[in-house]
Amino acid sequence: MKLKPSKLNLKDRIKRLEKLIDASLALSSTLNIDDLLNLILQKAEDVMEAEASSVFKIDPEKNVLYFLTARGVKGKEAKNIQIPMGKGIVGWVAEHGKPLLVADVTKDKRWFSVVDKKTKFITRSILAVPLFVKGRIIGVAEVLNKRGNRQFNKDDLEMFMSLGNQIAIAVENASLYKELDELFLSSIRAIVEAVDAKDPYTRGHSARVVEFSLLIGKQARLNKKRMKDLEVSAILHDVGKIGIPDRILGKPGKLTFDEFAYMKNHPKFGAEIIEPIAELKRLSPNILHHHERFDGNGYPDGLKGDSIPLYARIIAIADTLDAMTSDRPYRQRMENNAAILEIERCAGSQFDPQLVKIFMNAYGKTT
Amino acid sequence: MKLKPSKLNLKDRIKRLEKLIDASLALSSTLNIDDLLNLILQKAEDVMEAEASSVFKIDPEKNVLYFLTARGVKGKEAKNIQIPMGKGIVGWVAEHGKPLLVADVTKDKRWFSVVDKKTKFITRSILAVPLFVKGRIIGVAEVLNKRGNRQFNKDDLEMFMSLGNQIAIAVENASLYKELDELFLSSIRAIVEAVDAKDPYTRGHSARVVEFSLLIGKQARLNKKRMKDLEVSAILHDVGKIGIPDRILGKPGKLTFDEFAYMKNHPKFGAEIIEPIAELKRLSPNILHHHERFDGNGYPDGLKGDSIPLYARIIAIADTLDAMTSDRPYRQRMENNAAILEIERCAGSQFDPQLVKIFMNAYGKTT
Repeated sequence: MKLKPSKLNLKDRIKRLEKLIDASLALSSTLNIDDLLNLILQKAEDVMEAEASSVFKIDPEKNVLYFLTARGVKGKEAKNIQIPMGKGIVGWVAEHGKPLLVADVTKDKRWFSVVDKKTKFITRSILAVPLFVKGRIIGVAEVLNKRGNRQFNKDDLEMFMSLGNQIAIAVENASLYKELDELFLSSIRAIVEAVDAKDPYTRGHSARVVEFSLLIGKQARLNKKRMKDLEVSAILHDVGKIGIPDRILGKPGKLTFDEFAYMKNHPKFGAEIIEPIAELKRLSPNILHHHERFDGNGYPDGLKGDSIPLYARIIAIADTLDAMTSDRPYRQRMENNAAILEIERCAGSQFDPQLVKIFMNAYGKTT
Repeated sequence: MKLKPSKLNLKDRIKRLEKLIDASLALSSTLNIDDLLNLILQKAEDVMEAEASSVFKIDPEKNVLYFLTARGVKGKEAKNIQIPMGKGIVGWVAEHGKPLLVADVTKDKRWFSVVDKKTKFITRSILAVPLFVKGRIIGVAEVLNKRGNRQFNKDDLEMFMSLGNQIAIAVENASLYKELDELFLSSIRAIVEAVDAKDPYTRGHSARVVEFSLLIGKQARLNKKRMKDLEVSAILHDVGKIGIPDRILGKPGKLTFDEFAYMKNHPKFGAEIIEPIAELKRLSPNILHHHERFDGNGYPDGLKGDSIPLYARIIAIADTLDAMTSDRPYRQRMENNAAILEIERCAGSQFDPQLVKIFMNAYGKTT
């Protein structure tokens, strides 16, 4: 690859290096990979004077590259595009592990025009660098179209390679964090599912309560962090059933008054399991109160209205919906529509009427 | 604070900026904070030409600063030193959130000589910068004693502030990762403890098996990652008891033949709970085989010798030790020494003889 010698004087070079350092300050300031990459690429475009930029990650199983972030092109279209390894400029960089500077893509044999067609972006020039982590290539970063119809040069290449190293590390760290987070969620999910499965009639119950709860949460426009808290609370809402004897939990028939009275301890038992966990302690009220009723006639504390934690109110709806639409030893499952109407009927008595409205809207969207 | 104007020419300045970028490449390349900080500080000493360097983190509850890393001083002595907020140069920087350049510490009123006394390091000059994450101060970084009896200057300060931002982010990311890891461990621990507690005679059993297993693992010099795998396997070794009915699990007396036969399913149930969890699947053999015997007479598969996974062989010893030294409804707990002798007696039959040796050594150290 032929490069023009750098025309920048020393002062300009310092300025650009300082900008690059500035960019690196933004790096890793968050483990949220979307925000992070957007920030880095914004800085890269700034330093490199580029019109657009993207980061691709390699999926080693499918042997393709997919967009992690695409700035300056229509993001939604880009998200679903997959580029086979070795295909196009980006695929070439991924396969060879070498940077590539293409001044005019229309004159390059490797050029793969499918992405432009799908995103309706017109690429003129590309500077693409491989992303390495501990000697392993994990993706490709690129900047597109130097502003003012100029060409990317040797300085740009050097800087982008330096920035590429940092992007690689940030992507890797965020992946490690995500993996650990998935490990946490799937572990508690697996154990709770084993508890559900002790009673053949509640198999899969917690997973469905999570699903319904998140449907309501999404409709209520909870942000990412709140959705996560709701999800963890919903996964764990019945964890206290570990403390309920099998002869009650799996009884093939209706519970006696005393058995039911004991069964009512499960929210308390659940909260007790969660409380010693520093990071989950704040979620324990959601578990403790998921059997409260909006009118104050629930248990364990007879809380009323908004004094019942929001997520507990959401889980209460989801929990009841799943209970009604599942078979029980002493009755058959209710039809979905009948169950929905029953929830609507109980707005204001058993359930938070505002949340029931949100639930009805959410449900309307799924059917 | 008075600073000499920078005497560096442009070329030198570029060189140093490039070194700094180089340093930033090392940043975040690992979420292991010890390795990471050591790498960054090494680069910082290189760029700043310093004899030593440290990073301190603030403990907001105790209102003190403690060493995260100390290079060039006697690390072990440093590790246990705590500096009250506001005390010394470092404490001043932490309290005021401003960088500080002290050319001669003996002439500075803020100088706190206790650390030097404890570490036997002689500090002449200090350049210390606050570490900020999203506007919140989380610690302090310092370089000590510019080489060749020279003084830290304005350029050093600028660069170290820039590097300080990156250190802050790296420390923060590593903390977030550590928190999530603790959340994962404490969650599965809490749920498993609830399962143990179903039978009053096994309350705390899993926690003790973890403790004994790690004692053996440490003596066997397993590395950090292996110790972690052993810990998770040990926490989960009895998770399959979720699938055993209470009338067997909590029976106040010896189990019948049929009951015992059913009880023997718990390693299989445990492995089945773990297997769907992508990141834990590889640990499921440790759970499945923790009741195998070295002579092949164990269950479920009658595996023999080294074909039993290492961690399962370790857990087998730890599990038996705890069972013998705990009361059971039908017998009293054995004395510790008698239990140890019993394990030694079963070397080669029930247990891996090499691991029994290691266990005896480990145990010798704790008593």
